[in-house]
Amino acid sequence: MEKQDYVLLDGKKTAADIRAEIALEVERMVETGKKRPHLAAILVGHDGGSETYVNNKVKACEACGFRSTLLRFETNITEAELLDEVRKLNEDKEVDGFIVQLPLPHHISEQKVIEAIDYRKDVDGFHPINVGRLAAGLPCFVSATPKGILELLRRYDVRTRSKHVVILGRSNIVGKPLASLMMQRSYGDATVTVCHSHTVNLAEECRRADILVAAIGQPEFVKADMVREGATVVDVGTTRVPDPSRPRGFRLSGDVMFDEVAPKCSYITPVPGGVGPMTIAMLMQNTLAAARNEYYT
Amino acid sequence: MEKQDYVLLDGKKTAADIRAEIALEVERMVETGKKRPHLAAILVGHDGGSETYVNNKVKACEACGFRSTLLRFETNITEAELLDEVRKLNEDKEVDGFIVQLPLPHHISEQKVIEAIDYRKDVDGFHPINVGRLAAGLPCFVSATPKGILELLRRYDVRTRSKHVVILGRSNIVGKPLASLMMQRSYGDATVTVCHSHTVNLAEECRRADILVAAIGQPEFVKADMVREGATVVDVGTTRVPDPSRPRGFRLSGDVMFDEVAPKCSYITPVPGGVGPMTIAMLMQNTLAAARNEYYT
Repeated sequence: MEKQDYVLLDGKKTAADIRAEIALEVERMVETGKKRPHLAAILVGHDGGSETYVNNKVKACEACGFRSTLLRFETNITEAELLDEVRKLNEDKEVDGFIVQLPLPHHISEQKVIEAIDYRKDVDGFHPINVGRLAAGLPCFVSATPKGILELLRRYDVRTRSKHVVILGRSNIVGKPLASLMMQRSYGDATVTVCHSHTVNLAEECRRADILVAAIGQPEFVKADMVREGATVVDVGTTRVPDPSRPRGFRLSGDVMFDEVAPKCSYITPVPGGVGPMTIAMLMQNTLAAARNEYYT
Repeated sequence: MEKQDYVLLDGKKTAADIRAEIALEVERMVETGKKRPHLAAILVGHDGGSETYVNNKVKACEACGFRSTLLRFETNITEAELLDEVRKLNEDKEVDGFIVQLPLPHHISEQKVIEAIDYRKDVDGFHPINVGRLAAGLPCFVSATPKGILELLRRYDVRTRSKHVVILGRSNIVGKPLASLMMQRSYGDATVTVCHSHTVNLAEECRRADILVAAIGQPEFVKADMVREGATVVDVGTTRVPDPSRPRGFRLSGDVMFDEVAPKCSYITPVPGGVGPMTIAMLMQNTLAAARNEYYT
């Protein structure tokens, strides 16, 4: 039998714990006369992945005792119309926070939409004010995936301070904000290396990681020879790979070749059930924080 | 005689070139009926370093053909009064961009002042909107020191793409924004590692650098054994070290022990005359960009 003494970083279970904690907190709020936190989501079109994500977010709201509102629009909505919907949510005093599910149709500028969101309701943490405040170490909405990774490590007592964290990928929603979080004294306090498509000796860089985070969206890119014995591996990838044997016709693949990498690890996240559920749990935390005006008044 | 085949990254000369280029551009603008770019600076108190910096900025404005305005206040100015001065500059249509020289007296929140500045006039690039837009790879005012480092390397044809850049220090004005710039495809496109006081094996991390940037403010911290043969070393440190033999009673010390490190380098910046003058030149570039509404309208 193969050696298998790694610990699975169970995002599914951890996210359920967090939802339960939030639900308790919400009931306490309601008992003291406060209103339920209220998350709104805008969904444009019928992309399969987006439908699933938004569905899971609505379900998570229910589990947390939040009120939720889903606003659906067809792909022929104009940019001006969508910006107008954003403005309405900005002004709606009943809504604590809201998200616009990405991606948007090509005729709509995602950046323009993101910047139109009131940063005090920007529970995705994508608005430049939140990104900038994060980079400067100021209180703000931290984008959910990087925040979820840190929280998952924290709950399993995986220390980040003084560790060498190697991040594969420099996207605006994972790689860059995670680097920003990981290097800060008040969050990761780690030595951080960011690698990407133009990195040379990528395998060597990866082997130097105490904690390796793969966020490039390339199925099974990380092989065993790229991982140091005893490392912690966090897999952010969730690519839909066609698989006729599955009822839905696809399976979710991570960026890590799990079967060969896991035996070398101290800790590793599964896909699915790792970072994904944590991301949604952090969106719930951000919504709770919005309802309580934790970062902004 | 000691081996000395390194190239000095001459920030003083490069900054002079840039000022001359800007001056030419300004004369062209004025000839076509446009007004001269106008930089304003707020200086509170009489800190020696700050006086020098602001003086050099005013001189640089003259060399560039800019109009400049220096607003001086005593250290007993209240936060509310200072915020009011910021508001006036925000509204002054004659002012294209302005800076508030840091540090400020302890009774004034620097962050509050920075956030009060209209981000469209924030030529220091410190406002969260500019920091956030930089992190997201969007057009914005890039803070002057990191921008100056990239420009200096560029003018000496020191490639950054696919190089391993190691940054010592994670400050909000150098380390973090430089990391952000260096990792982005449209700027440095480098593999970036950020090290700091909690990094273990610091010397080993530094030895892996193709380009080592020291920005920790600890005189002569970087020794020869921390530098790889053939590396490029950029020294951001400018600490005033007491020196009775000098007329002013101090000398400026960099973070790098220049005499022992330089012989191992391909390229190295001197202190003074390296990153410092480049920082001011980039402030001039940002002011020109502000006058031309290059990033914001």
